Amino acid sequence: MNLPQVARLMAGFAGFFTVAQLPAFGCALLEARHDRYATVAGFGCSLAIGALVAALLWGAIPFQWSGLLPNPFDAVFETVSGLTTTGASVLGSGPNPNVPDSPPSLLLWRALLQWIGGIGIVLVFVTLLPAMGITGKNLLSSESVGVGTESYQPRALEKARLIAAIYTGLTALCALLLVWPGGYGWFDAVCHAFTALSTGGFTTKVSIADFNSLGGELVLTTFMFLGGASFAVIATHWRSGLPCLRTLARSGEFRLYTLTTALLILFCTVALVRGGLPLLTALRQASFNSISVLTSTGYATADFQVWPATATLVLFGAMFLGGCSGSTAGGIKQVRFLVILKLLAYTIRHFVRPKSIERIKLDDEVLPAAVISSILAIVMLWCLTVAIGAVALSFDSQLNFVAALTSSATMVGNCGPALTLVDPTEAGKVLLQGGTAEVLPGIANVGPFGGFGGLADGSKGLMSLQMLFGRLELLTAMVLFSPSFWRR
Amino acid sequence: MNLPQVARLMAGFAGFFTVAQLPAFGCALLEARHDRYATVAGFGCSLAIGALVAALLWGAIPFQWSGLLPNPFDAVFETVSGLTTTGASVLGSGPNPNVPDSPPSLLLWRALLQWIGGIGIVLVFVTLLPAMGITGKNLLSSESVGVGTESYQPRALEKARLIAAIYTGLTALCALLLVWPGGYGWFDAVCHAFTALSTGGFTTKVSIADFNSLGGELVLTTFMFLGGASFAVIATHWRSGLPCLRTLARSGEFRLYTLTTALLILFCTVALVRGGLPLLTALRQASFNSISVLTSTGYATADFQVWPATATLVLFGAMFLGGCSGSTAGGIKQVRFLVILKLLAYTIRHFVRPKSIERIKLDDEVLPAAVISSILAIVMLWCLTVAIGAVALSFDSQLNFVAALTSSATMVGNCGPALTLVDPTEAGKVLLQGGTAEVLPGIANVGPFGGFGGLADGSKGLMSLQMLFGRLELLTAMVLFSPSFWRR
Repeated sequence: MNLPQVARLMAGFAGFFTVAQLPAFGCALLEARHDRYATVAGFGCSLAIGALVAALLWGAIPFQWSGLLPNPFDAVFETVSGLTTTGASVLGSGPNPNVPDSPPSLLLWRALLQWIGGIGIVLVFVTLLPAMGITGKNLLSSESVGVGTESYQPRALEKARLIAAIYTGLTALCALLLVWPGGYGWFDAVCHAFTALSTGGFTTKVSIADFNSLGGELVLTTFMFLGGASFAVIATHWRSGLPCLRTLARSGEFRLYTLTTALLILFCTVALVRGGLPLLTALRQASFNSISVLTSTGYATADFQVWPATATLVLFGAMFLGGCSGSTAGGIKQVRFLVILKLLAYTIRHFVRPKSIERIKLDDEVLPAAVISSILAIVMLWCLTVAIGAVALSFDSQLNFVAALTSSATMVGNCGPALTLVDPTEAGKVLLQGGTAEVLPGIANVGPFGGFGGLADGSKGLMSLQMLFGRLELLTAMVLFSPSFWRR
Repeated sequence: MNLPQVARLMAGFAGFFTVAQLPAFGCALLEARHDRYATVAGFGCSLAIGALVAALLWGAIPFQWSGLLPNPFDAVFETVSGLTTTGASVLGSGPNPNVPDSPPSLLLWRALLQWIGGIGIVLVFVTLLPAMGITGKNLLSSESVGVGTESYQPRALEKARLIAAIYTGLTALCALLLVWPGGYGWFDAVCHAFTALSTGGFTTKVSIADFNSLGGELVLTTFMFLGGASFAVIATHWRSGLPCLRTLARSGEFRLYTLTTALLILFCTVALVRGGLPLLTALRQASFNSISVLTSTGYATADFQVWPATATLVLFGAMFLGGCSGSTAGGIKQVRFLVILKLLAYTIRHFVRPKSIERIKLDDEVLPAAVISSILAIVMLWCLTVAIGAVALSFDSQLNFVAALTSSATMVGNCGPALTLVDPTEAGKVLLQGGTAEVLPGIANVGPFGGFGGLADGSKGLMSLQMLFGRLELLTAMVLFSPSFWRR
């Protein structure tokens, strides 16, 4: 069976049926009926799934046809990992060649997939879904955004164009800065610009540390952080120039994002210093790698699975947390945690002064209890998904307790690298001297310098599904956990 | 400083102030004022904390005075572990003697602490708190239980007496059955009867497997399972005789409890058979140890940290889950998961048929959205507590990623044993041949056959707090996350 041709054929089918639904979808948008919401949601989901399937199958063809990844599970995994900006790779593990030995054209293709996936998800969540009234946005502002059917399309299109322009401009800037002062070659600079801003994480070497460039690390750190910030807020306030930054800094979500970044770096630095690294080395490694994990990029300058338990635990937590909503980052998103923290703070205040009447606010807007409940339900579903996924993955005998648990979290969170446990003596050596740790016998290295190529095909298939599930932010769940339920 | 005398003095103080509050508390209960609720809750919390502190300090004296546990952190840890029916022990690790080498009087004292703690928590949650209107019960039935201030006391007292009688009777029966057919000596039988029904888990040997008695394991399994079932339901329907069992079997929570038990045994058995054990051995080990973990008892017939990842992952999940509400078991409790599952099922049904109007019911009672929200908030807080605790514990260099994470979960869930990762070659050997696994160098064995005695004093202190926090089921949180908030 000629798998690439079958894939192309199926991609054609999926693409055709997706395009064919467009007129009906447009019609649904313009309907004035009371139950329009459900119809629009139905067509929207169908379109999204169709476009995704087509993109995936078409995306996987180059990997397989070129002979780089002869196993179709590998080709699909790599493509899904690209389009979902996860950054987990099957290269350099199992029977597959190392990243630096792969043809540059395919490395560029991998990077491009992430760049497209990054802008794609931002556009879907920031412009398309709000226009349809079914996004996370309506879990945060009070439900009835009520975008008029006649007026929304131009506004949404304008915003989409602006976001695309900002995204492209920042990518170009990143590439230039990587060449100087980063000292990267042009090819590497372009590839990394594509994968940094999209918080994707594919690289052209085994480790970012191989470039041995502090400047490059600083540039990448900056653009990963930007990629994890909200493009929605930036685009909305872009025209105001400098005040745009002020708006960003005043947003509760961005503040929490900055705070968690700082705390993450602090915890990792302390853990590394206690592990024996000098302060500056510890700070450099902690900053780069923890921002990489928090923004769900997945670059690494150190094999951080050998880090002390405190560091690996907070990094594991960061896989859940993720970046801001309306960004290219994965994870549960900062804004949801912000709401949960506000709920906790509220209840404590309420306990101290039971008679005080106040409400939970987010950026000066009152959050109805129904919205808070929906967010709690989504976070709960996320944790359940990770737990069930971990048990399913553990049937692969190459994944131990830690590897199964963190793989599940890293896939659903679109982060990329997982962790596995290393012999403590070996871990201490690698921590101080650098390099890649040897994992315990019989176990796959799914850490930052390892790969997923050696796993069973079933595991790769399951992980591909988890990446999609996480990337669409449990899209369906959002439709399902509609605040209207909680109003009753 | 003579620590035991200081402890006794402080225990006296705490006891005195607790008793002194009783009249005021009684007065608060009888007040007819609108804000009575807050006053009662305040006095209730204060009384609970005072009684606890007094019990703890008094309870720790025998361990320290006898010279068995000279370190006060050890003595307090062991006492808290007893009273909270956790069952984690510092014996047999660090500088402390092994369990079988300890004086029988102190082993009996340990067992008795668990027996008292078990009945204590059931009485608090089943009779005292509902009478005060501030328990988990009112998160499940609609809020206004509205117990009349005049009539509740006799009813609550009667129920408490009945529960105590059932609890004592079952304990006596368990001890008899352990002697025959279990083949235990009288002393061991009594100690294990105390710790099985209270789902405590202290034992008089290193492992239950040392008794080498299938009959004993079956008896213990049965009584652990009973201890994890709802004493509230049993007491309410006791007089009806056989129909009582029918009521229990019809309760949604008990059904889920049975189902999760069966699933847990299934997953563990499959994992063990895949790991190379014969089916019957696998089934015997899986049944005993997974019921032990799910009911938060903590007995072990195998060093289950060497089990394949699937088994350890589901056991880790069971530490969160726990038994039924109104039982001696710890954990989040089955009923809360039942509500979350019902919510998921509801949303899926609602997605398929958006116009269907139905409500989420638990045992034929409609659950208001406000109650569901409260439950979600409590489960979320539980997960956050475990996560923060894990990071804090990881500062102890003897706890690796797995050990810190599972220790935090096992303490908050009042289960007892944690897990740590063992070299896979070693693990495979122990799995097939039995015995205790050697853990990786520099790491503490906090698994079922290990102990917490070798950890830093700070870790022991933190763990003691976690056990209390979990045992009181985040009591305060329940008061805080009052459904009234979600109504707004």
